[in-house]
Amino acid sequence: MTKRVVLAYSGGLDTSVAVRWMREEWDVEVVACAVDVGQLVPGEEDAIRERAVAAGAVEVEVIDAREEYARDFLMPALAANALYEGRYPLVSALSRPVIVEHLVASARRHGATAVGHGCTGKGNDQVRFEVSSRILAPDLEVMAPTRVWGLTRADCIDLAARWDIPISASKEKVYSIDENMWGRAIECGVLENPWSAPPAEPFTLTRDPADAPSESRSIVIGFEAGVPVSLDGEALGLVELIGRVGELVGSYGWGRIDMVENRRVGIKSREVYECPASLALILAHRDLEGITLERDLAREKQRVEIRVAELIYDGLWHSPLMGALGAFVRETQTHVTGEVRLGLAPGRCEATGRRAPRSLYDHDLATYEAEDSFRHADSEGFVRLWGLSAETWSRRQGPGRS
Amino acid sequence: MTKRVVLAYSGGLDTSVAVRWMREEWDVEVVACAVDVGQLVPGEEDAIRERAVAAGAVEVEVIDAREEYARDFLMPALAANALYEGRYPLVSALSRPVIVEHLVASARRHGATAVGHGCTGKGNDQVRFEVSSRILAPDLEVMAPTRVWGLTRADCIDLAARWDIPISASKEKVYSIDENMWGRAIECGVLENPWSAPPAEPFTLTRDPADAPSESRSIVIGFEAGVPVSLDGEALGLVELIGRVGELVGSYGWGRIDMVENRRVGIKSREVYECPASLALILAHRDLEGITLERDLAREKQRVEIRVAELIYDGLWHSPLMGALGAFVRETQTHVTGEVRLGLAPGRCEATGRRAPRSLYDHDLATYEAEDSFRHADSEGFVRLWGLSAETWSRRQGPGRS
Amino acid sequence: MTKRVVLAYSGGLDTSVAVRWMREEWDVEVVACAVDVGQLVPGEEDAIRERAVAAGAVEVEVIDAREEYARDFLMPALAANALYEGRYPLVSALSRPVIVEHLVASARRHGATAVGHGCTGKGNDQVRFEVSSRILAPDLEVMAPTRVWGLTRADCIDLAARWDIPISASKEKVYSIDENMWGRAIECGVLENPWSAPPAEPFTLTRDPADAPSESRSIVIGFEAGVPVSLDGEALGLVELIGRVGELVGSYGWGRIDMVENRRVGIKSREVYECPASLALILAHRDLEGITLERDLAREKQRVEIRVAELIYDGLWHSPLMGALGAFVRETQTHVTGEVRLGLAPGRCEATGRRAPRSLYDHDLATYEAEDSFRHADSEGFVRLWGLSAETWSRRQGPGRS
Amino acid sequence: MTKRVVLAYSGGLDTSVAVRWMREEWDVEVVACAVDVGQLVPGEEDAIRERAVAAGAVEVEVIDAREEYARDFLMPALAANALYEGRYPLVSALSRPVIVEHLVASARRHGATAVGHGCTGKGNDQVRFEVSSRILAPDLEVMAPTRVWGLTRADCIDLAARWDIPISASKEKVYSIDENMWGRAIECGVLENPWSAPPAEPFTLTRDPADAPSESRSIVIGFEAGVPVSLDGEALGLVELIGRVGELVGSYGWGRIDMVENRRVGIKSREVYECPASLALILAHRDLEGITLERDLAREKQRVEIRVAELIYDGLWHSPLMGALGAFVRETQTHVTGEVRLGLAPGRCEATGRRAPRSLYDHDLATYEAEDSFRHADSEGFVRLWGLSAETWSRRQGPGRS
Repeated sequence: MTKRVVLAYSGGLDTSVAVRWMREEWDVEVVACAVDVGQLVPGEEDAIRERAVAAGAVEVEVIDAREEYARDFLMPALAANALYEGRYPLVSALSRPVIVEHLVASARRHGATAVGHGCTGKGNDQVRFEVSSRILAPDLEVMAPTRVWGLTRADCIDLAARWDIPISASKEKVYSIDENMWGRAIECGVLENPWSAPPAEPFTLTRDPADAPSESRSIVIGFEAGVPVSLDGEALGLVELIGRVGELVGSYGWGRIDMVENRRVGIKSREVYECPASLALILAHRDLEGITLERDLAREKQRVEIRVAELIYDGLWHSPLMGALGAFVRETQTHVTGEVRLGLAPGRCEATGRRAPRSLYDHDLATYEAEDSFRHADSEGFVRLWGLSAETWSRRQGPGRS
Repeated sequence: MTKRVVLAYSGGLDTSVAVRWMREEWDVEVVACAVDVGQLVPGEEDAIRERAVAAGAVEVEVIDAREEYARDFLMPALAANALYEGRYPLVSALSRPVIVEHLVASARRHGATAVGHGCTGKGNDQVRFEVSSRILAPDLEVMAPTRVWGLTRADCIDLAARWDIPISASKEKVYSIDENMWGRAIECGVLENPWSAPPAEPFTLTRDPADAPSESRSIVIGFEAGVPVSLDGEALGLVELIGRVGELVGSYGWGRIDMVENRRVGIKSREVYECPASLALILAHRDLEGITLERDLAREKQRVEIRVAELIYDGLWHSPLMGALGAFVRETQTHVTGEVRLGLAPGRCEATGRRAPRSLYDHDLATYEAEDSFRHADSEGFVRLWGLSAETWSRRQGPGRS
Repeated sequence: MTKRVVLAYSGGLDTSVAVRWMREEWDVEVVACAVDVGQLVPGEEDAIRERAVAAGAVEVEVIDAREEYARDFLMPALAANALYEGRYPLVSALSRPVIVEHLVASARRHGATAVGHGCTGKGNDQVRFEVSSRILAPDLEVMAPTRVWGLTRADCIDLAARWDIPISASKEKVYSIDENMWGRAIECGVLENPWSAPPAEPFTLTRDPADAPSESRSIVIGFEAGVPVSLDGEALGLVELIGRVGELVGSYGWGRIDMVENRRVGIKSREVYECPASLALILAHRDLEGITLERDLAREKQRVEIRVAELIYDGLWHSPLMGALGAFVRETQTHVTGEVRLGLAPGRCEATGRRAPRSLYDHDLATYEAEDSFRHADSEGFVRLWGLSAETWSRRQGPGRS
Repeated sequence: MTKRVVLAYSGGLDTSVAVRWMREEWDVEVVACAVDVGQLVPGEEDAIRERAVAAGAVEVEVIDAREEYARDFLMPALAANALYEGRYPLVSALSRPVIVEHLVASARRHGATAVGHGCTGKGNDQVRFEVSSRILAPDLEVMAPTRVWGLTRADCIDLAARWDIPISASKEKVYSIDENMWGRAIECGVLENPWSAPPAEPFTLTRDPADAPSESRSIVIGFEAGVPVSLDGEALGLVELIGRVGELVGSYGWGRIDMVENRRVGIKSREVYECPASLALILAHRDLEGITLERDLAREKQRVEIRVAELIYDGLWHSPLMGALGAFVRETQTHVTGEVRLGLAPGRCEATGRRAPRSLYDHDLATYEAEDSFRHADSEGFVRLWGLSAETWSRRQGPGRS
């Protein structure tokens, strides 16, 4: 029986050519599996199906994974305020594990013994695909045709033409783009020079601030146990809420990132992102935590957040360490319930107010007004013992030694 | 002989009254010591001297500590990208240790056996003052008149009048403000309600973005070993450079912070800051590190940065732990030399380019173009072993177990 | 109505005198509450009751909290291999929170508005008592008579005699001792000189190794999900198991600790402990984790363990951070099921074998024999990319730069 | 010109065969380079030279690197109390970087373009060799004949015989052993079953405790700035001191480790070590730090120690992160000067006393005797503010909420 592989199918040039190439070169049956994590536009599904069939797929699946992606992947990341290197909300990194979950399920449905992907050999996504696959289904082989085929973009276009795969692609591809509900990643072209400022053209989710509404406005995001549940008082499902926040914030031209980041494989790459929804939600979530997390918990959580972001970036979403860190993070979210007001203006998005039914901000303790409930006399003893260890050090080893 | 105390003197109502109050109540001679860390405006020095004398100070000192503050305090903090809770550049927290150094030196000069401060019992600054003092001079007593005197603002104004201390102060003080070269902290009044958006009035370093120049512009900051040394190619001393960056960035209305933070004494307080210079320099410095720090070093440094910020906030600048963390941070800065371009527009300040003579960004490794030098074949083995530990876990304990 | 306080009652001199002293000096009714966490010997309960009554307690409670202590306090600590400063199994630190839980419950039963303890002002236990009490019952006052009464030991003995409190105590108390199921802490006397070797006399749980059985032997401890459940194949309840392990290991003279530790209040103190049961169980548990925890999880858990031990030591058992770290730790224990063999010999206790039904040790991967399943070819690529980031650093900034 | 490679030469079967094999199969000239890090016995040098020549080496070098190894590698590790997974003193891991330094220097001397090693594809040592080599000399190729040749032990013995390489090796090699001044690592054979207790036979550095001197004794180790400098008052060079401590401690049968550890390549392996010198020195050093390191510094250092051990284990000794962590650690050692007494008895080695000229242990603060200098009244305020954050949490979100 011919071996069967489920390929993560984007509908683009590379994976379309890969469908046929794998059949030709490796004599395998290819199931094309497109997982929608928010990147598909309405109507795109049919075109994808047709193209996969034309490329020779024995089966095509288009799976709407948006709700699941938002609930089971984006929300844990939001709870951890996950930003790789303090900046990148892990747009691509978060989508790979959910895609692999569907590839594996599809492989089981179709009796496949392998899964495949179109990642190159120097990026992070191969790591995420393969590690997730080996964890979820150690028995499945992982095939990576594009990593070994040695084809240039021009070669691919020629093959597509020869094989009658209906796809329009220019030989000069300017940018490499990956997109989903959490944002959009832009690489290559002029961006490969980290001194060059990013041009205006590749951005689609964020308007140029110069074209933003001149009127500033506020929005209020409501959270329950760390999860955003409402916008300006209107209860919304996650997919809808993320979408609307992204549109609003993006319309004010906020949410772009320009950075050089460290890939897992050991190289630095210049990346440009636009992530209005994810950055705004993390900003609001973190701000709400400011009044709902106890100090020591908040301090330790900062360290955990860094580790969570590294793990997601490094392809270890499905690892047991992620499970344990997730347990920590979940435990912190119980009372992250309340509202945050975001002020929007051209090129800006800022938290301007926050409130919570179980806020730990205590006006009577904090106020400098006369009627405060803080026992000032406690401070003297506190400060002396807080510094006693360092004071003793000073007397024996430091500046105060005799 | 009458006991002598060196009081940290701001020239404001509280410390002016404290000079006389301490003489009256505690029978001590007060040396008023004003340390300029950038908060004084030209000409203010004379007014300060006169006021202190009028209040009964036996000696008055006004010390220009700006260069020293920038070099020995702000630069180590910048090297650590020190932001408390990820946001606050430690404006007040950084100034206290340098002030205490001068108080102690002054105490030695004037034969004083105590230092004094005007901090309240619920803030962080008392911790910073007293811990630094106990470390630098464990033999000196620390006096905190305002923590125990039980006077309201109105009482202080009455006393100032009775004692002929020339000071204009309204009984309704709206905000409590602390300022120096690194930024400006604003507390109290309407801000004590964390749901209220900050009003426009208290900001002086940052223009309302609506009033910013409509023309956007770029500035280029040059660094040597982590220290900013030039602006748009012009070599500048630190005080000058920080001042100019602050003016430029502030003129575009960028650099405000609105947060609820965790004080060391255990309470949350709502704080508003405007820090155009420090935030812009940290942004640029961190961006330059993106191309000059090796990955594992950069990852660990993130954790160290958090700890450094906590220590500074908690009053432990002069502690031995700070010394050891400082050694780590210094070691990382050797090659943080290069330039960062910041794009300024109304309400915005963003890094749009970075370059370094010893950049670790390697175009030939990173490029997706055909001629790259990355050995793609290495990836297969790498990814397999990178995930092997988690794969084994899966087979025995996880989703892949049999 | 007279105010009522529930005092943590040990039956010793200090708390016995405190019962009467508080009545005399503070005019309060004292409920004496003795919580057995393994320190009581059979029959001691009656003597405790009589003494408390003689001292004037309005109520006496002796509560057997051993099962609860073992299950809800010692087991989470064991799961975290909690050793303060890498050595001390937190004997006293773990018992305070459970004692406070009972004090608070007792206060509710008896309509008390305060709880009390007999800790001094420079130790850790006051921190643990008071912080736990303020967390569990912020409305209850905390009274600490011994911290303020200014009585010497001789004074206490005189008062006990005058008040007819039946207690035998010598004016020369050599050591201060605290004991429970998890071990025994010994302070004071000759031990206050950290250069003096601990004398033989104060040890009761651990025999002098010279007097240990000359025959060495092995014991096997079985764990389920991180909890010890059997000894040499015999299923045992926790109290019984901890007791038996302690006797066996202690009979071989193993389990003593001699250290100078850092107290929370900022001073260093020399402490001697004997903890045969807890140290042996932690040793076995950690060893079992060696074959049942995945690598990255194990590495991160080391850091969490340090933080957990600090929190327990610092009196923060009931804090929200402890809750979140506990969630992390619990998540790691699911498969810590198996057996560890401990070899016992005079002065020694060592793990000599470990096995687990879901062990991650994979002989076929690990063996150096010919038939291994490891793909050696993967290593070349792995090693190259593992070192690529540092290699690039070397070429640009390090020893290999040109 | 024929390509030249410098091979790390142990004098054992594998590397001896490799010398000739590389010449035959790869047509390279092999320089055999044996680096003595304490594994050579007097007189062994000549045998090594002869064997290498017989195997066909074009040059043989035997380099005494013991002083350098002790000073530049072992001492930084000791300063960091480096124990991988809390137990293993990194015996092999520490030696590889110094060996590579000499291989590279030799390659420069002999005009070689490659270095070589005899490590297998599943161990850690290949990682250490290759990563160090790529960092120190990115231009040199790394050759790993044993990873690819596919020869069994029997094959090697046959080849050695055919090629007249004078070496006595039994076809049944029971254990794989690596040894240097810091200890001895034992793998394979019966040890591959982690449930089997280690047999007595492979140990050479540690006596069976049953055969230890019955008389117990003490030794005193003196340190200066973290470095051991004397034994029982006698100043000794490092190599001598480490050797003598190892003999003394080993003669009492202490210093064995039996563990399952996590290799970098993702597999767990059962390892048995005997490390009397390193473990005793780390024990003494850590104990001295107990009285010479300030509390917060000591707490943070624990975390740094874990990271240092991981880096060394993972082959990253020469990485920039190691440099920065080393700067932290060095900074901590300034006052780690003093003496530690170790009590030796059969199977035991324990710190029983410690003293330091700049000890931070302050008897007057610590004592429970009447004349102490601690201000007990400070405690009340300290404890209240120490717990205030958690108390506020309790009132709003925790057990005390209303």
